Amino acid sequence: MRTAFTDLVGTTQPLVGFSRSPGVVAEVSRAGGLGVLAATAYRPDELDAQLTWIEQRTGGAPYGVDLLVPAGTSDAATDQRRRIPQQHWDFVAELLARHDLDPARLRAAPGADSTAHAIAPGGVDELLDVTFAHPVALVANALGPPPPSMVERAHAVGVVVAALVGRREHAERQLAAGVDVLVAQGTEAGGHTGSIATMVLTPEIVALADDVPVLAAGGIASGEQLAAALALGAAGAWCGSVWLATREDITPDPVKRKLLAAGSHGTVRSRTRTGKPARQLRSAWHDAWEAPGAPEPLAMPLQVLLAKDAWAVIDGAAAAGHAGAQELESFFVGQVVGGLAELRPTADVVAGMLADCATRLRALAGLVDVPTG
Amino acid sequence: MRTAFTDLVGTTQPLVGFSRSPGVVAEVSRAGGLGVLAATAYRPDELDAQLTWIEQRTGGAPYGVDLLVPAGTSDAATDQRRRIPQQHWDFVAELLARHDLDPARLRAAPGADSTAHAIAPGGVDELLDVTFAHPVALVANALGPPPPSMVERAHAVGVVVAALVGRREHAERQLAAGVDVLVAQGTEAGGHTGSIATMVLTPEIVALADDVPVLAAGGIASGEQLAAALALGAAGAWCGSVWLATREDITPDPVKRKLLAAGSHGTVRSRTRTGKPARQLRSAWHDAWEAPGAPEPLAMPLQVLLAKDAWAVIDGAAAAGHAGAQELESFFVGQVVGGLAELRPTADVVAGMLADCATRLRALAGLVDVPTG
Repeated sequence: MRTAFTDLVGTTQPLVGFSRSPGVVAEVSRAGGLGVLAATAYRPDELDAQLTWIEQRTGGAPYGVDLLVPAGTSDAATDQRRRIPQQHWDFVAELLARHDLDPARLRAAPGADSTAHAIAPGGVDELLDVTFAHPVALVANALGPPPPSMVERAHAVGVVVAALVGRREHAERQLAAGVDVLVAQGTEAGGHTGSIATMVLTPEIVALADDVPVLAAGGIASGEQLAAALALGAAGAWCGSVWLATREDITPDPVKRKLLAAGSHGTVRSRTRTGKPARQLRSAWHDAWEAPGAPEPLAMPLQVLLAKDAWAVIDGAAAAGHAGAQELESFFVGQVVGGLAELRPTADVVAGMLADCATRLRALAGLVDVPTG
Repeated sequence: MRTAFTDLVGTTQPLVGFSRSPGVVAEVSRAGGLGVLAATAYRPDELDAQLTWIEQRTGGAPYGVDLLVPAGTSDAATDQRRRIPQQHWDFVAELLARHDLDPARLRAAPGADSTAHAIAPGGVDELLDVTFAHPVALVANALGPPPPSMVERAHAVGVVVAALVGRREHAERQLAAGVDVLVAQGTEAGGHTGSIATMVLTPEIVALADDVPVLAAGGIASGEQLAAALALGAAGAWCGSVWLATREDITPDPVKRKLLAAGSHGTVRSRTRTGKPARQLRSAWHDAWEAPGAPEPLAMPLQVLLAKDAWAVIDGAAAAGHAGAQELESFFVGQVVGGLAELRPTADVVAGMLADCATRLRALAGLVDVPTG
């Protein structure tokens, strides 16, 4: 299926596979879509190795990289971590203890370092250096408008810049910043997301974007949902959650089991994992932060560091079968989680979505050609 | 466009116009869709007069009626009103006073009576008597499964029973109750609604409904959004908010002006107007109920009565140009409010949606027939 987006990035299909798993990224690109690596948790040398691995797998098919470049972060990582109030450390320590996890391991946890590096300004520049040294087709900035340097560097080497938007005003700022693709992300999406649903947001962003292609994100994990995105005027779909149910995804098994068992009502849009509203699987973690007396979540990046340290404890124990850790376990996922029931090869997911989309679009064409009396 | 829904109810188009405005209902049915009157605020004699008027306008075209039949309400209306705590009367009185409205008018307001009648069990039976004495094609129950007597009476006279559902478990209960049409209502919808978006909920309900037709509701106010609903597997769309921007709609002008000016982020899903989560235009009313020290909203029907009494004061003053009342003014509306910009004839809205839907479906068919390399 050829659209303004496929023409721009050089793919054969209007489907983006956004994932932190390099294997998913490679398989989506091999199958005709555009794999986009969520690269916020990598050090520069790790990112370089992952991009090299992806290129070896895809044999020249286009792929992309998503970075997190927040505005206004100026502290070094170690300073940021010291700014977390004692009340918040105590709250999380008590929460872990209530679930029979050792709170003493919290401050000793190694989870925060690479993230703190990536979201510090110096770290981002290094990640951009690595990114632009590779033949990427697209770079995206996960939160807010990309800095001018990112847009200039991308355009200088012919790389398409994409940006996620949750409402009209975001899109206006992104267009002013010079982005080439807008991703209209509905509230049903996993991760950082706004309050407006994909069904409403997509045509609104399409209407103001003129000739800038718009992808729909949020609520898209099947061919029928891809067809709906195209019906809304999108030039393709940006999918994230659906890949969590693939064999190539690196999410730990205890999380995957919870994802496959969850219903579509099992998510919550919460500030408790990053400091900004992000949709994730609801667990005992979220119940605790909503209980009377719980502190307000901190701003980004402090809440990221606090939650990362907690998750270093939770993930390790959950992997060993610890019941309390499994109650707390969670991950970023959209409302499509209710439709994820088994692990499949990424290539099969892509092929199935494209085939089902084509079948549905042909059936709908028959609907308008039939006389209706 | 012929679907399983149009075959069932005898319309030529898979579009429902749900409205409290009899003029909208009649015009939607005249234009080939199914007008459905929201009849919760009528006394039996008023409902009889409105249905007679609709039939005279539509000349035999199918139409429907939506009633509110809650389970478990047993008090008489006057007793219900006495159960509202003094704290809540005081809170609303102070809120009105802060907006320069006379709080003494609150308890004297006439707004609650017809609603209290409609949601009392005896009142519902009378409304059903009136409804089934008219040649309605469809009855719907706005909240929860219809009582067995409603389904039996409808089926005995060949009337289709529809029910709104916000998640899988609701749909299972409605199917067990014998309903003939499920309306999958996404969180972006106006009025009482759940948390799952239309994009996710619709295919989930379609998958479990077998041969029971499913309509999509929430986020649908254009032909492209109707096309998306059909792509998701719906047999049509159930639209409510879009009719608020028609000439036939009876919503007071001060509310209409706010609706036409609002953006898609301007709604809130709140318990403060009925006691159950309902999406509505955010105003100073909602800000006040979310402020520290505000009481928790009451359960239905007590919060309905409290808010109705307040709105009798607010509507009257807002119509006279009172600034404080205009700040508080609000109405039930979905996120599509951001796309409502001017008042149009209902017939034009229907014709435009159907034409745009057909155009989009034909364009999408071209997408899958073009070789993609």
